[in-house]
Amino acid sequence: MLVTRYEHNPIIKPEDVPPSQPTLTVWYVINAGVARLGDEVLLLMRVAEQARSDDPNILRVPYIDPQTHVLNIKEFNRDDPRIGLSDPRWVSTPDQDYLSSISHLRLARSRDGLHFTVDEQPALSAGDAYDNYGVEDARITKLGETYYINYTSVSPTAGVTTSLVSTQDFRSFQRHGVIFPPDNKDVTIFPARINDRYYALHRPTSGVFGRHNIWIAESPDLLCWGRHRLLLETRAGMWDGGRVGGGGIPLLTDDGWLEIFHGADAQSRYALGAVLLDRDEPWKVLARSKEPLMVPEEDYELHGVFSNVVFTCGTLCEKGVLLDDQVVRIWYGAADTVMAYAEIKLQDVLASLR
Amino acid sequence: MLVTRYEHNPIIKPEDVPPSQPTLTVWYVINAGVARLGDEVLLLMRVAEQARSDDPNILRVPYIDPQTHVLNIKEFNRDDPRIGLSDPRWVSTPDQDYLSSISHLRLARSRDGLHFTVDEQPALSAGDAYDNYGVEDARITKLGETYYINYTSVSPTAGVTTSLVSTQDFRSFQRHGVIFPPDNKDVTIFPARINDRYYALHRPTSGVFGRHNIWIAESPDLLCWGRHRLLLETRAGMWDGGRVGGGGIPLLTDDGWLEIFHGADAQSRYALGAVLLDRDEPWKVLARSKEPLMVPEEDYELHGVFSNVVFTCGTLCEKGVLLDDQVVRIWYGAADTVMAYAEIKLQDVLASLR
Repeated sequence: MLVTRYEHNPIIKPEDVPPSQPTLTVWYVINAGVARLGDEVLLLMRVAEQARSDDPNILRVPYIDPQTHVLNIKEFNRDDPRIGLSDPRWVSTPDQDYLSSISHLRLARSRDGLHFTVDEQPALSAGDAYDNYGVEDARITKLGETYYINYTSVSPTAGVTTSLVSTQDFRSFQRHGVIFPPDNKDVTIFPARINDRYYALHRPTSGVFGRHNIWIAESPDLLCWGRHRLLLETRAGMWDGGRVGGGGIPLLTDDGWLEIFHGADAQSRYALGAVLLDRDEPWKVLARSKEPLMVPEEDYELHGVFSNVVFTCGTLCEKGVLLDDQVVRIWYGAADTVMAYAEIKLQDVLASLR
Repeated sequence: MLVTRYEHNPIIKPEDVPPSQPTLTVWYVINAGVARLGDEVLLLMRVAEQARSDDPNILRVPYIDPQTHVLNIKEFNRDDPRIGLSDPRWVSTPDQDYLSSISHLRLARSRDGLHFTVDEQPALSAGDAYDNYGVEDARITKLGETYYINYTSVSPTAGVTTSLVSTQDFRSFQRHGVIFPPDNKDVTIFPARINDRYYALHRPTSGVFGRHNIWIAESPDLLCWGRHRLLLETRAGMWDGGRVGGGGIPLLTDDGWLEIFHGADAQSRYALGAVLLDRDEPWKVLARSKEPLMVPEEDYELHGVFSNVVFTCGTLCEKGVLLDDQVVRIWYGAADTVMAYAEIKLQDVLASLR
């Protein structure tokens, strides 16, 4: 593999993140959107919190009440035969399914992209009928002086949608509502207009046919999206045979738009690969990784809340800090538990696609 | 019930529709979009065709080859234990799922809306990677002199999407591509702009949470859609507790936008009800049928390819031909087999919502 991991990975662990409320504990911190603001690298991390429970037999599940917008805790007896707990992230009941944790988005700040200071409080939290099970997996696209942040909003009535907010300072945020209806996640908005149109990769799910493919859409205003085209299908039997989805926002290179995306295989191993899209007609795929650029190898990638995962929501194309060259800097969630960091030379990625 | 059915229902049966190719037979004709063109009522019907088979043990499944755009027939032995045939509309195999028929859209023309002449050939057929399993369930919205037709496009790789075409004469059609990504159907575009924006009801599926709710979206151009808002949820235990979806295009009345929509209950009985939306802010629900306006009662509604269904894609608000009053004229698919017709007085619908 061409990728160079930071030797002191993971860079941020759950114990580095103060809980948002005394009744909650931080379970995992992963899948950060990334932006450069002045001389700082910002991570907008997904922080998943569980409700504290003094009784190991009692599972306590946090969610926002969609009417009152207040945090509620629902209690389940782990011995109750009607309760399904086979996936630790889910609680299925005859009436309704719950997530066993609730996620918010939290900022961390760094000069070098390796050593981060984590904010005391969330930057963006659940609060409406579209996200009362949490907000997850942000991506950040800078257009002009404004940062557009899209994230996965989860609610049991609306499903899994993608919402948009914008900010100029990462202190105040303007909400723009749901931009992709359910079920849709892994949205990455291109950081420039192409022929006067905005473009985004998105990952709708076809439950009917069991498909998890990457699509591309265009927009006049970032709010309304259309001209949906299937861009990247899963490839049966390969490293991305189970599902694919956008990763960091696309990077403009001499060869075209470079997107680091994730692929899961039939055994749900999540790896990272690259796809190169035409600079002017980004719905045209020029090249795609036959082999992944990065697979779970290290202990913190192989074992965790959901094992065998490397998953990125944020990359930057900059001079490396581990490698003395122009690199793709990759901040990534490992085993759905911690944040980690790696670099790969831009020329190595592009060469692998030729 | 307030509804008056046409005594000679059904108005169009499969044997009234010539097959599009000699190798196919017409299985059912249902769920027509409706438009008025001059002094004629046009139905744009969904015609589902099966492949002829001389051997009752051999199931022959038609689909369009996405590469060659030519009709292919796949053969299955009904005794093959790997083949799933529990739903007559589906053929599940270890590799891929198939539909047991392929649908196209066919025009029928009438002066009175009761007696129709069916075109010899399809108006719109499957032909690309987004609809190679067929085109289904059209809705027709007239804006200015142009008719916009959206329909459900089905393919095993793209899933269940909604595509848009436009026409002025129902002879030549301009294709506008996929306007709602998978899985999304039952799209009904409002027949007027509201505060300079187009609006549409749509029905995305959240497979993750098992939701089939009606949403509303807005658009600057009919192609790109956003500001998605959850409009109408299923109501557990009621006639629309299983799934809801848009029916005919919304009708402007003195009380607001009137939409005849379908609801399925937990036993998959499909019925019709009404919802009233604010004239200027159509994302606001003013009233909704507590009881359905119309449920399957007649033999042709109770028994068919999929029994116990009344389902509309087309309504007009006009002077009645069965009733001497302003009525909602409802053309509807019955038991997923035939087309039928009914009327209900507009004042009765509005009164039922007060």
